[in-house]
Amino acid sequence: MLTLDSQAALPLVTQIVQGLGRQIDEAALREGTKLPSIRQFAQSHQVSVFTVVEAYDRLVAQGYLVSRPHSGFFVRRRAAAGAAEPVPASPQGFDSAWYLRRIFENRHLAVKAGCGWLPGDWLFEDGLRRGLRALAADDADLGGYGDPKGYPPLRQAICEALAEQQVTVPPAQVLLTQGSSQALDLCVRRLVRAGDTVLVDDPGYANLLFSLRFQGARLLGVPRTPQGYDLAALEALVTEHRPKVFFTQPRLQSPTGSAAPLGQLHRLLQLAEKHDLTIVENDIYVELDPEPRPSLASLDQLTRVIYIGSYSKTISPNIRVGFLAAHPDLLEDLAQLKMISGLTSAEFGERLALSALLDGRRRKHLKSLRERLAEAHQRVGGRLVALGFELFAEPKAGMFLWARHPRLPDAPALANRAAEADIMLGPGHLFRAELQPTDWMRFNVAFSGDERLFAFLARELE
Amino acid sequence: MLTLDSQAALPLVTQIVQGLGRQIDEAALREGTKLPSIRQFAQSHQVSVFTVVEAYDRLVAQGYLVSRPHSGFFVRRRAAAGAAEPVPASPQGFDSAWYLRRIFENRHLAVKAGCGWLPGDWLFEDGLRRGLRALAADDADLGGYGDPKGYPPLRQAICEALAEQQVTVPPAQVLLTQGSSQALDLCVRRLVRAGDTVLVDDPGYANLLFSLRFQGARLLGVPRTPQGYDLAALEALVTEHRPKVFFTQPRLQSPTGSAAPLGQLHRLLQLAEKHDLTIVENDIYVELDPEPRPSLASLDQLTRVIYIGSYSKTISPNIRVGFLAAHPDLLEDLAQLKMISGLTSAEFGERLALSALLDGRRRKHLKSLRERLAEAHQRVGGRLVALGFELFAEPKAGMFLWARHPRLPDAPALANRAAEADIMLGPGHLFRAELQPTDWMRFNVAFSGDERLFAFLARELE
Repeated sequence: MLTLDSQAALPLVTQIVQGLGRQIDEAALREGTKLPSIRQFAQSHQVSVFTVVEAYDRLVAQGYLVSRPHSGFFVRRRAAAGAAEPVPASPQGFDSAWYLRRIFENRHLAVKAGCGWLPGDWLFEDGLRRGLRALAADDADLGGYGDPKGYPPLRQAICEALAEQQVTVPPAQVLLTQGSSQALDLCVRRLVRAGDTVLVDDPGYANLLFSLRFQGARLLGVPRTPQGYDLAALEALVTEHRPKVFFTQPRLQSPTGSAAPLGQLHRLLQLAEKHDLTIVENDIYVELDPEPRPSLASLDQLTRVIYIGSYSKTISPNIRVGFLAAHPDLLEDLAQLKMISGLTSAEFGERLALSALLDGRRRKHLKSLRERLAEAHQRVGGRLVALGFELFAEPKAGMFLWARHPRLPDAPALANRAAEADIMLGPGHLFRAELQPTDWMRFNVAFSGDERLFAFLARELE
Repeated sequence: MLTLDSQAALPLVTQIVQGLGRQIDEAALREGTKLPSIRQFAQSHQVSVFTVVEAYDRLVAQGYLVSRPHSGFFVRRRAAAGAAEPVPASPQGFDSAWYLRRIFENRHLAVKAGCGWLPGDWLFEDGLRRGLRALAADDADLGGYGDPKGYPPLRQAICEALAEQQVTVPPAQVLLTQGSSQALDLCVRRLVRAGDTVLVDDPGYANLLFSLRFQGARLLGVPRTPQGYDLAALEALVTEHRPKVFFTQPRLQSPTGSAAPLGQLHRLLQLAEKHDLTIVENDIYVELDPEPRPSLASLDQLTRVIYIGSYSKTISPNIRVGFLAAHPDLLEDLAQLKMISGLTSAEFGERLALSALLDGRRRKHLKSLRERLAEAHQRVGGRLVALGFELFAEPKAGMFLWARHPRLPDAPALANRAAEADIMLGPGHLFRAELQPTDWMRFNVAFSGDERLFAFLARELE
């Protein structure tokens, strides 16, 4: 029995993790001992089941406990003090097509220099917690399936945000989705058939590339330049291959960080018009952009552009709320496809997203998030340059730095060695349509300030 | 300015709806008047934004307010006292292939006799609210994407529930999904290619039929009988057409309510073995079943059966939590497809589902839910028989009654007349693979106790 203090500064979860961990280290709890069930522990210690679930979960991750089907949690043989959960990725995993599983499985590595998300404490967790408390205190109806297109007041709020970005669209043309990933996947399923030729950014967004490959699309990469698009290459591809769709991210693009200027956006839309190309614009980093840059949708007003947004980078990915806005004809089809692939989206998360959007402290949070990213760009970029890295693009905003080093040409091998040193890197081939080799790598500035990263890179360069 | 009383028995939302409604009825608030923004109203009346959102939303639904993009909420011209939101469905809508949109758009009809969900107050809303409060009070990490397969402690709990139902499976073989709909759609995308022949229940689950049609499958219906399957017909179809997959719901099937006995399940698995057929078993009504009937998965132990479950009928559809359990090889593919189509599922909802599962009052709730359904079966079945309806199947359990009347052969026309009387019916062709005509109709016993339904049917039979 542990003594817990609900008034202590140390969270209850941490008290339980440390307390049980100590008992196991000291063999007061011996290998094979069965722990009380979650409910028993919660009752006997007067804490919530969530607290116990979280604590047991962390102890499993730390290798103290093992969870056995149908029987419960048991004390595990301790390998060594502080041993972390074994990383299930084999080194060659980085070459596997199952990149997504890989990055998520590697999320337990200590230094997440290559990952695609933000640290929890950079997000709007305070606002989310306030929303959660308000929702818990409220008498909102929690029993229904919700609206097929998503929670109407959130769609209204999104329209208001889009109006500020010069995109005029009514709520009926906004569809809420399970993050931007579902929005992209719905577009893939609606617009692409097996054998179709599709344009993508090269390099581009890995999850989208997998969705397109699964659908049987033939992928053609439009080269990214430090200034945005290679328009001559784009025009040649469009003329020769007559693609139907271009999936692109003009702003603060992942992985390159580059942003296309107004003139390029206009020219791209002219080409699209001439060759009857539909454009799916992934603009999930708009709120991280320190400049009021236009989007393709703000020029085209959803005639041939489908616009995709997300709150995973500014509120939290945990609520899984993204959206798309499209021409009415297309939107009804996409809404139907959304229903086929999971009926409605969770109104719960949508209510929380709305409360965060309406939270008076959100603008301040966004401002400080952008400042924090700018500082991280300065710091991480400076350290990489000092080590001899070449950086790809201005502006120094958003989450990513695309960089390479003349003496580190084999990025996948480097990433494998890094994983052994508990560091997750983002070798560039993972972001390419055919996984073509490249010496470029993606650094997430929010996770790349860690000294262990620079020590590792310095050792590699010795 | 309204005077609100947070201590009153009447919920704040209702106070606002009634107060503003009265002011509009009495023209104290005139047509075209702009209302305060949600945030302004919340601040000036010292209530949460959720309360205001909910109230405005209901006033829009009731026709008192209209929401204009980019500008806010305005008082609408009142058509007549108590006018409801106009039903956007045209009468011929019931013949449209867009059935799903239709049933969701028709969810505002007063009497939902044909719908596929349970009333909010039949669900475990209390437990959900307790979980929400615990989660709000907790210091759980809300910042991450969560585990690709879903929240590990919930997967553990699901394994324990499955063990009670004689299905032995480790958490690694359980994938959490956005309701059973996503689970079915993932199976369709993984197992079916355009042109493939697939077996389905006839009649069966409409959303699945649409997903299969979208994938380009050739659908063959296996006739349901009052006692389960027509095994002779099944064997003939399997022998002649060599289908790859059978999507089926053995227990308390929607729409017929029938349940297949043990002997049939065994024989079905023998046929599957002989003809190398994969079976996707939709068992979402298991917790509504008063009898401890076996599932296909409990016989087969996930060798060639994929098992699908959901908490939409017993906790709430709003959290969008379902799951599938499958053979390890297949499961990894399905997990990868889940990531392609929306990355992770929302851990939020999964934490709430777990808290409901661990809630001490849940078993009692399930018991009373089953009793309530049994009583509704007695009552609704009795009334229909008294009017001259024929009922399809025993057992009288689960949500649905499948019924027809010799003097009401045109179910779609009847459904259209019912919609004009504010009643939503479920004409049987919507549940058939090729929308073949039928005089059968689906009644949801939880919504069919309404006198307006019986009055309407009596008028039709005069």
